Amino acid sequence: MSAELIDGKAVAAEIDARAAEAAAGLAKSLGRVPCLAVVLIGDDPASDVYVRNKGLRTQAAGMRSIEIRKPADTSEADVLEIVAGLNADDGVDGILVQMPLPDHIDANRVIGAIHPDKDVDGLTEASAGRLVLGKPGLRPCTPSGCVLLAERAMGDVSGKSVVVIGRSILVGKPTALLFLEKNATVTIAHSRTKDLPALVRTADIVVPAVGRPEMVRGDWVKPGACVLDVGINRIPAPERGEGKTRLVGDAAFDEIVKHAGWITPVPGGIGPMTIAMLLRNTVIAAALRHSVELPDGF
Amino acid sequence: MSAELIDGKAVAAEIDARAAEAAAGLAKSLGRVPCLAVVLIGDDPASDVYVRNKGLRTQAAGMRSIEIRKPADTSEADVLEIVAGLNADDGVDGILVQMPLPDHIDANRVIGAIHPDKDVDGLTEASAGRLVLGKPGLRPCTPSGCVLLAERAMGDVSGKSVVVIGRSILVGKPTALLFLEKNATVTIAHSRTKDLPALVRTADIVVPAVGRPEMVRGDWVKPGACVLDVGINRIPAPERGEGKTRLVGDAAFDEIVKHAGWITPVPGGIGPMTIAMLLRNTVIAAALRHSVELPDGF
Repeated sequence: MSAELIDGKAVAAEIDARAAEAAAGLAKSLGRVPCLAVVLIGDDPASDVYVRNKGLRTQAAGMRSIEIRKPADTSEADVLEIVAGLNADDGVDGILVQMPLPDHIDANRVIGAIHPDKDVDGLTEASAGRLVLGKPGLRPCTPSGCVLLAERAMGDVSGKSVVVIGRSILVGKPTALLFLEKNATVTIAHSRTKDLPALVRTADIVVPAVGRPEMVRGDWVKPGACVLDVGINRIPAPERGEGKTRLVGDAAFDEIVKHAGWITPVPGGIGPMTIAMLLRNTVIAAALRHSVELPDGF
Repeated sequence: MSAELIDGKAVAAEIDARAAEAAAGLAKSLGRVPCLAVVLIGDDPASDVYVRNKGLRTQAAGMRSIEIRKPADTSEADVLEIVAGLNADDGVDGILVQMPLPDHIDANRVIGAIHPDKDVDGLTEASAGRLVLGKPGLRPCTPSGCVLLAERAMGDVSGKSVVVIGRSILVGKPTALLFLEKNATVTIAHSRTKDLPALVRTADIVVPAVGRPEMVRGDWVKPGACVLDVGINRIPAPERGEGKTRLVGDAAFDEIVKHAGWITPVPGGIGPMTIAMLLRNTVIAAALRHSVELPDGF
């Protein structure tokens, strides 16, 4: 048996299309389309690509995209002022400050300044608190993408055992809490976990999110299990020529694909879901702020 | 082998004494002792006893106790005004609104009104968010008590496997997050978990927190494991006479005590820790608000 590949790109395109539809519906109630503002400080090339992609996908979904780009030497006070301005601007529904920020800026302080109702990245204290407390709110994008792909693949995940490897505030912890909300039995494993392979072997769903190339081996994965690989690691690929590299996940794809039930490829699995969930969050933020109902099951 | 009983009452007395010592130290910096305000709406007899005990323990620890008691027909607006007044009062370090509130009052709204820096119960969105994000803040009392007792019994819990049964926002989820902060491998189980006995058998530390009398049986518990029983259930005890009752936990104490490593009795285990951690939180809140350092390891 060979695992079914979960095509994150195709699902992301579907989510984008649904966000576009909901955005068009919202425009009728609001008199304008939902709007996402992205703030980029400095000229990190990777961040530049991300921000551009976010802008393009936002516009492609029929929403308004605002990009605020400032030089790397912008002061923290100026960044906080930009965020305050976007908080106060009723025409802005979502605010995302691209990480990493230059060293002289306290990222926590900047994230903390974002109004929780516009926190489409789901990173503020209030958003994290709402997630733990099970209250309506904006959930972090990559974790939401994981849960959505698992449900697409397996249907209801209630009662499934999930092992999340990694306990970051960006991915590990929120992914565990989101799967718990879906009635899965959730374990959070990490570098101190004893006999990780044996633990992973008990899981119906495995979510490696640690950033270690191909750490999860084939014999760690139970036959038929679902592997949602959050890792994106660039490794040398001399077989492609001198100095060449390739992207791999935290899971050893070639070993696991032989017997798992489902696996997300890297690239093209979880990755494309992140922006899709960001667009979805922008629509949710616009709807929540203006007390407009979204289509069922959005 | 017979399990060691974890004497929550003795440990709580120790925590109270340390809180008293720290409170006396703070009084020198602040010019006053730390102060806990408890709000009780209505005349529920159990709540009355809790509130009185909290007041007595607060005073016994050399701190100031404010009790605000209002009749059951107090309006939500009036309760919110009381909370706002306590938020604004610089002489108040901790605010606790006793649950349950009368039905006509939205508990979420009242809890949400408590300033997070005075949220000694650790129940606000901000406190929950700080817990997930690993930021300094006030942690919920019963979960903190569980972790402290586990460390007293076993020493460092890093790498230990913890199974928390129950996913309430009061106990289950925060207990899991606190053990995770201590580098344990944490699983959250609940009513949808498949083969709970087998899962519990894998645990070094078991925390039943569901409110089902003696649900966790002896053969669910690995020899040498530590059982922290959060449940407090009143059951009929005809052997003590007609109409008599007794308190039992969520764990079948008589079966488990024979082979576990440690177990908390009910009553006298986790229960007494809750007020101790509340006093501790009041001291922490006073110190954090006034940027005063607490003794090492407090």
